[in-house]
Amino acid sequence: MSSKDNTISFPELIKLKRDCGQLNRAEISTFVQGVTSGAIQKSQIGAMLMAIWQKGMTDEETLAMTREMMNSGETFKWPKEWLVVDKHSTGGVGDKVSLPLAPALAACGCKVPMISGRGLAHTGGTLDKLESIPGFKVNQSVEQVKQILEDVGCCIVGQTESLVPADRVLYAIRDATSTVDSLPLIISSIISKKGAEGLSALVLDVKFGRAALYKDLNSARRLAQSLVMAGNKLGVKTGAVLSRMDAPIGQSVGNAVEVCEALECLKGRGSDDLKELVICLGGYLLWMCGHSGTLDSGKTEIAVKLENGEALKKFEAMLVAQGVSADVAHSLCSNETDYSKHMKRAAHQTELEVLDDGAVLDIDGLALAEVLHKLGAGRTKSGEVIDHSVGAEILVEMGQQVKKGQPWIRIHHNCPNLKPHYSDLRKALVIGSHDKYETSSRVAEFIHPDYPNMS
Amino acid sequence: MSSKDNTISFPELIKLKRDCGQLNRAEISTFVQGVTSGAIQKSQIGAMLMAIWQKGMTDEETLAMTREMMNSGETFKWPKEWLVVDKHSTGGVGDKVSLPLAPALAACGCKVPMISGRGLAHTGGTLDKLESIPGFKVNQSVEQVKQILEDVGCCIVGQTESLVPADRVLYAIRDATSTVDSLPLIISSIISKKGAEGLSALVLDVKFGRAALYKDLNSARRLAQSLVMAGNKLGVKTGAVLSRMDAPIGQSVGNAVEVCEALECLKGRGSDDLKELVICLGGYLLWMCGHSGTLDSGKTEIAVKLENGEALKKFEAMLVAQGVSADVAHSLCSNETDYSKHMKRAAHQTELEVLDDGAVLDIDGLALAEVLHKLGAGRTKSGEVIDHSVGAEILVEMGQQVKKGQPWIRIHHNCPNLKPHYSDLRKALVIGSHDKYETSSRVAEFIHPDYPNMS
Repeated sequence: MSSKDNTISFPELIKLKRDCGQLNRAEISTFVQGVTSGAIQKSQIGAMLMAIWQKGMTDEETLAMTREMMNSGETFKWPKEWLVVDKHSTGGVGDKVSLPLAPALAACGCKVPMISGRGLAHTGGTLDKLESIPGFKVNQSVEQVKQILEDVGCCIVGQTESLVPADRVLYAIRDATSTVDSLPLIISSIISKKGAEGLSALVLDVKFGRAALYKDLNSARRLAQSLVMAGNKLGVKTGAVLSRMDAPIGQSVGNAVEVCEALECLKGRGSDDLKELVICLGGYLLWMCGHSGTLDSGKTEIAVKLENGEALKKFEAMLVAQGVSADVAHSLCSNETDYSKHMKRAAHQTELEVLDDGAVLDIDGLALAEVLHKLGAGRTKSGEVIDHSVGAEILVEMGQQVKKGQPWIRIHHNCPNLKPHYSDLRKALVIGSHDKYETSSRVAEFIHPDYPNMS
Repeated sequence: MSSKDNTISFPELIKLKRDCGQLNRAEISTFVQGVTSGAIQKSQIGAMLMAIWQKGMTDEETLAMTREMMNSGETFKWPKEWLVVDKHSTGGVGDKVSLPLAPALAACGCKVPMISGRGLAHTGGTLDKLESIPGFKVNQSVEQVKQILEDVGCCIVGQTESLVPADRVLYAIRDATSTVDSLPLIISSIISKKGAEGLSALVLDVKFGRAALYKDLNSARRLAQSLVMAGNKLGVKTGAVLSRMDAPIGQSVGNAVEVCEALECLKGRGSDDLKELVICLGGYLLWMCGHSGTLDSGKTEIAVKLENGEALKKFEAMLVAQGVSADVAHSLCSNETDYSKHMKRAAHQTELEVLDDGAVLDIDGLALAEVLHKLGAGRTKSGEVIDHSVGAEILVEMGQQVKKGQPWIRIHHNCPNLKPHYSDLRKALVIGSHDKYETSSRVAEFIHPDYPNMS
């Protein structure tokens, strides 16, 4: 009975989705534009997101939503000859892959305008990690991003005001309304942002396992397939890697400690599983964007850039371009392994001992992250201040034979008494007979860009 | 992983309901208090309402929600000896029952602190009708309500700031988010407000049919049963009447025109179906509150008060107590039948003619209300200004034998050209053979207070 008969009202839009109806492109546009302009009330956005969470969206609706969100603000335009690539991870524990990956790709001649996020709940955020480096500025304007790509080739920055403004509104409300874990909402949020970056190729690191959003391979695969389809439909060559997320990636969890581990990786050292992920995701991007003829040659090129110090040089240049003093950047990227001169160190380092002889069968990344979160390394809601110096170094490896009394973890903390957390920390380490240990690669599967088109 | 382990967070509350969980009393209290205090964000309220719409609530949850809402603000306290009664209708077309009913009950010695609402969409609002009387003030403080009940015995007022503040917030958001038609939300909204009025007895006029919220008797009966159970559990003796809502109630639809019809009813004249509803609802209340020994003796007493002018006297006193000048009130309540001296009249009165000979088989209240809405009698969203002078007088009765060319409706309007609405208006009148006419009482069923207790 509205007098404006040709436009659908917001309550009518919500009712349509509530009753399992399919929204057409014009209706989705009305919703996304209303979100961006503020014409739609926050209560209406909350109700619509819950209706979408409950009733889902078809592939067509998801794609329309993604496109409208991408076009809700400015989009990056690059010189034609640039190979612009990026990686997105669905979030894990100890995931510092972006830190060595972006400079390694830049060292191969690619441009990497990496827009990252902050940590929430047990998931760490790349921006938080980088901010533990004195002087590092994650906020860069569109013009500054262009200049850094021109000069260095890579940057890791926060979401700008002008890119995908609809997502900033929707993401904050999804977080507040328990509507984060909805396939169409995840897809439109991720792909709209990457679409606005004007990429040549995009690789998605979709995690599955105990410390991931999706616990099992099948549901992670469905997400990965949908993301790949949406990305390609939007005109970005997109592929995905399904990777295991049970034990933490590498040997560290936290913010400052993870930067140190990333520096080790860039110096050709550090743990194999981190290196495997960097090489695999980077090689895949090089192959997808046409820089390398095969996946294997792409992987080899990334491995070389980590070994020969070229990736490290790019990282140093990126630090300086993003506000770190040349002295600090140079010292961090020198052959030095003691980073405590420049990185803030926690007041206490406490080592816990192994309680039984045996082999390391499991290290529970989620349990570990939850303790570190309580110690101040993470935030419960967005905007909270975190303690960059809090973290854990894992002193044993999966499958390793250990002896009772041997230290297995070093907790960096500012809490006078760690004892209340001992029992939770101990539960994170599983020791047993070595024949029960199964070795497995982090990377389980690839979803290629030619994955069947959306129906 | 919240650090405040003993209180559930708002997103966790939403997630619980989203996943079909049952909220306990403490959780519902957290939600309602958050709504009242403003601690819970509007987006979270929208999402929670949609989750409740989708997943429903158990009887226990609904009752807890009703109780928490009732206690979200002030509640009325009355002298012990008062028989305090009220009626609530789920909304219909031409429903001016409250106007004769409140003074008729007051004439029987009851106290009637009637808190009414405004019209929305095709449903008229008692407050809007009364505001077509010059000087009538619907906003009265708690103290003023007490004084009017003391002096007159009845008042019809808007929701005060201090009574059930949670409902004011929730109702506005339900309207904006398409979550109005949810059984637990309807029940908690209606019963919390009536519970806060401190009633001895409450009768609910639950409508079913074309122009009602529920189209069929069965779903209206479910609502009525739930309302009756919730009211009695909350300590208010509550019964319900299921009444038909296809054709408009009485012979008028609008605001000023309905006040005139209510005055006619108070003068012992007017249409039978309106009188039937007033007598039935009033008699039921008199019986439930213990004033009358039987339903029939209650009904008789109400009929007498309409006939003997005592109800009319109370109405006149109520008008004066609520701001109408004594002269105007007296003139309206005199034996005069021309009310145009005091009630604003529309610029145009247009009569439409019957197109065929035959019997009046149906008058479509919803279709009629929709045309009047377009002519300015109703509002599309809350807060809109309406035109009190717009309305319709129906000049024929259901079952009546009519002749082609005879006028059947008089439209009061301020629109220079009514012709674009002719076709919709004509569709509202169904003429046919008299043997197809089925006479039926408005009142279809009673749901008594002793209806099986909630499980």
